[in-house]
Amino acid sequence: MEFTAQQIAEALEGSVDGNTEEKVSNVSPIEQGQAGTLSFLSNPKYTDYIYSTNASIVIVNEDFKPDKPINTTLVRVKDAYQAFASLLSMYEQAKPIPVGIDEMSKIHTGAKIGKDVFIDTFAVIGRNAKIGDKVQIHAQTYIGDNVTIGDGSIIYPGVKIYHDCHLGKQVTIHANAVIGADGFGFAPKKGENFQKIPQVGNVIIEDHVEIGANTCIDRATMGSTIIKEGVKLDNLIQIAHNVVIGEHTVMASQTGISGSTKVGKDCMFGGQAGSAGHITIGDNVKVGAQAGIGGNIKSNEIVLGSPAINYSVERRAMIAYRNLPEMWRKINKLEKLLDE
Amino acid sequence: MEFTAQQIAEALEGSVDGNTEEKVSNVSPIEQGQAGTLSFLSNPKYTDYIYSTNASIVIVNEDFKPDKPINTTLVRVKDAYQAFASLLSMYEQAKPIPVGIDEMSKIHTGAKIGKDVFIDTFAVIGRNAKIGDKVQIHAQTYIGDNVTIGDGSIIYPGVKIYHDCHLGKQVTIHANAVIGADGFGFAPKKGENFQKIPQVGNVIIEDHVEIGANTCIDRATMGSTIIKEGVKLDNLIQIAHNVVIGEHTVMASQTGISGSTKVGKDCMFGGQAGSAGHITIGDNVKVGAQAGIGGNIKSNEIVLGSPAINYSVERRAMIAYRNLPEMWRKINKLEKLLDE
Amino acid sequence: MEFTAQQIAEALEGSVDGNTEEKVSNVSPIEQGQAGTLSFLSNPKYTDYIYSTNASIVIVNEDFKPDKPINTTLVRVKDAYQAFASLLSMYEQAKPIPVGIDEMSKIHTGAKIGKDVFIDTFAVIGRNAKIGDKVQIHAQTYIGDNVTIGDGSIIYPGVKIYHDCHLGKQVTIHANAVIGADGFGFAPKKGENFQKIPQVGNVIIEDHVEIGANTCIDRATMGSTIIKEGVKLDNLIQIAHNVVIGEHTVMASQTGISGSTKVGKDCMFGGQAGSAGHITIGDNVKVGAQAGIGGNIKSNEIVLGSPAINYSVERRAMIAYRNLPEMWRKINKLEKLLDE
Repeated sequence: MEFTAQQIAEALEGSVDGNTEEKVSNVSPIEQGQAGTLSFLSNPKYTDYIYSTNASIVIVNEDFKPDKPINTTLVRVKDAYQAFASLLSMYEQAKPIPVGIDEMSKIHTGAKIGKDVFIDTFAVIGRNAKIGDKVQIHAQTYIGDNVTIGDGSIIYPGVKIYHDCHLGKQVTIHANAVIGADGFGFAPKKGENFQKIPQVGNVIIEDHVEIGANTCIDRATMGSTIIKEGVKLDNLIQIAHNVVIGEHTVMASQTGISGSTKVGKDCMFGGQAGSAGHITIGDNVKVGAQAGIGGNIKSNEIVLGSPAINYSVERRAMIAYRNLPEMWRKINKLEKLLDE
Repeated sequence: MEFTAQQIAEALEGSVDGNTEEKVSNVSPIEQGQAGTLSFLSNPKYTDYIYSTNASIVIVNEDFKPDKPINTTLVRVKDAYQAFASLLSMYEQAKPIPVGIDEMSKIHTGAKIGKDVFIDTFAVIGRNAKIGDKVQIHAQTYIGDNVTIGDGSIIYPGVKIYHDCHLGKQVTIHANAVIGADGFGFAPKKGENFQKIPQVGNVIIEDHVEIGANTCIDRATMGSTIIKEGVKLDNLIQIAHNVVIGEHTVMASQTGISGSTKVGKDCMFGGQAGSAGHITIGDNVKVGAQAGIGGNIKSNEIVLGSPAINYSVERRAMIAYRNLPEMWRKINKLEKLLDE
Repeated sequence: MEFTAQQIAEALEGSVDGNTEEKVSNVSPIEQGQAGTLSFLSNPKYTDYIYSTNASIVIVNEDFKPDKPINTTLVRVKDAYQAFASLLSMYEQAKPIPVGIDEMSKIHTGAKIGKDVFIDTFAVIGRNAKIGDKVQIHAQTYIGDNVTIGDGSIIYPGVKIYHDCHLGKQVTIHANAVIGADGFGFAPKKGENFQKIPQVGNVIIEDHVEIGANTCIDRATMGSTIIKEGVKLDNLIQIAHNVVIGEHTVMASQTGISGSTKVGKDCMFGGQAGSAGHITIGDNVKVGAQAGIGGNIKSNEIVLGSPAINYSVERRAMIAYRNLPEMWRKINKLEKLLDE
């Protein structure tokens, strides 16, 4: 498929600045822009590339003012990032959606399968599982007994969902993620092996959640580990037993939340952050990459460091930290002076 | 199944404080307690919930003294946590254990399969592998050539065990964990690709070990990577080649131990902790979350921070750290004063 | 197979120091050396073991001077580590390479399969995928539509490669790694669910790359996430969308690189290190374990700490850090003195 700058501008309610008949048939990032492709500029860090990119058309914010000549055709829109995202979404939605049940899959007795479902090769659907309409269960996926999956969800290859977990609608789970493995619970016994605490709860994942590859969400000891509506978890994340993650909270990869901690809604976690167990993190909290949360955090806080503290305190401490050797010298000099 | 408070008290050698005929048919955590369920109180952090929980029966320590009226029936026992764990264990043990070999699994020639084994759909058992009695090999699991698995072990869906590794009895491995992948060994070669060091050793996992989802235990370059009896590893942990983990050591998720390090017995690692390679960590060492161990640690030490140091030194340094900007101001003021 | 010290010395162009007819049939690490095995000594940390090892033959550097009597036969070579690696490689290469297509695998229409390929049980090869000669696709692996894999590559059990990714020659990917899952891209929408940015790019992995178990490499939003020639990635690593990793860079386990960051060639990352997104890390950079890179790093830099700074600054600051409580006391004492 080919589109002209004019067609793109019309679809996005924007305006063309250049050749309205310029054509594109694919997309590219601005720093690797190629002829015949459409790109966009949103992050100011990448502004320099617009003067050298080979992309044929670039979507920009309507107030973008070049300070050098530009060789490419611009399409000006209100919000370049969102406009581009919308275009990509249209493109994705135009792709055919897989449907059908592969004969080399295994569906156990009592499972209920909705309409227009895709169940691919070597997938297993457990006893009494309930699969909603238009769900995609990709190859080599394991859906345990009594699991329910809401309409329109996509389970990528190799995902394992243990028995009795519940997924809402439009949930996406990427390859090899594990949902509902046992929480890490052992009672010490003097001079003996630890006693395993059976994990008899489950995991509940609400609508519109996306979960990254190789991420683990453990089942609750009792009750439920809950991932609320619209949460987005990146790859290789650990969510321990009985954790609750509030609506629309976003976590970057390799973050870990320990058992029974409650995370509020609209929070953002940088990569490799961690949290202790049995604490409460409020709403709209921002957590820096590699931060280590040791206690409760109030709503709207921004925390950095390990142990994590208020970002303005931490930032000043970080700067002073580099002066530590100099401070040490100065103090010893002052002591000496005073001794004299 | 339904139980009365009296029946529960008898099973746990405890006493009822309230309605001996109160009935429960399920369990719940105290903070989400529901009518008709049994809960327990052990962690003092959760004491407040006992006054508001809807759980019909709560197991408490025998010396628990409420300071407000309580609406629920109590069962008093010596150790509420362990008593509850025992109850859950009884419940789990009452569940039917799966047995049988699915016809859509693949068992290679020379493999020896014990009695009452469960081998689920799309599992692969390698040449000359030896599977003990009552072992559960769940769906889509790969057991390499010559692997041995002791009686009563449970291998959850998607686990991959490379050739020649040995697992003891009552070992549990959660979904998508990888046992015996190549250790990370490459010899630099100037101006060329690194030369791979073939990893010709294996992994030995002793009895009663539990390993979390997506955890990786690499095979030894030569000899064995060894996980000793009763070790418990959480999810997403990295154990590098030739590491030895001592008896009953426990590691929280996302911890990583570098090559050839020996960890003693009865150690406890917080989440996201890391250790350098080729070092020795003694017995009964406690390692804080996100700690980074750079050198040998003596037995019975408690270490925090990155680089990890003795916890009492680290704790005081952490507190002073927040005062760094103030210290810097003070020093400069003192300097100025003395200059005058 | 058995070899004499003389035969080994000849193969390695070294010399025997001891019994030229000493025989070995296996290998062992020097600290666990057993009779009838060959070992090597390279790391000075392990020198003590040479006086007590039971290994029958030990390969050492030609300039090794024992300061106590030695009971084992030595083979002296220029570089003991590399010589031993070469021996192991010869041993590995002597093993039979698996070939053949299992009847319980699934190969979709349009896929092109090279010569002497191994496709094991329950593997899936997508539509129009192209598998080179002598490629090994192990059990339960998923190769998406249009994926290409170069000659001699090894894909271990459970690896999932999403559609349209390209792998070069002699690439090795360990079990349950995920290549080409969606990058983590969502546009915030006030009061609504995030808008997913479709990830329409792919992953390109060049020749001689090795990737560890459970590692994740996300596909680009547009264009390609690129892992260049000879890169070695350990287990449980996260490489985000649009990242480029330069030639021969090596990363230890649990490291994470955020979106669009460019890492140069010949870099070395310690375990659990992390990098912010949209930055540039030069060539030949060394990054300490658990370091957190927040901004661009010039070529040849060595950085430590979180946030990561030049290692000599960080090292001195680390040492002073432990003196913080004492500094605080001293400053307050000085203040008091001056007040008086």
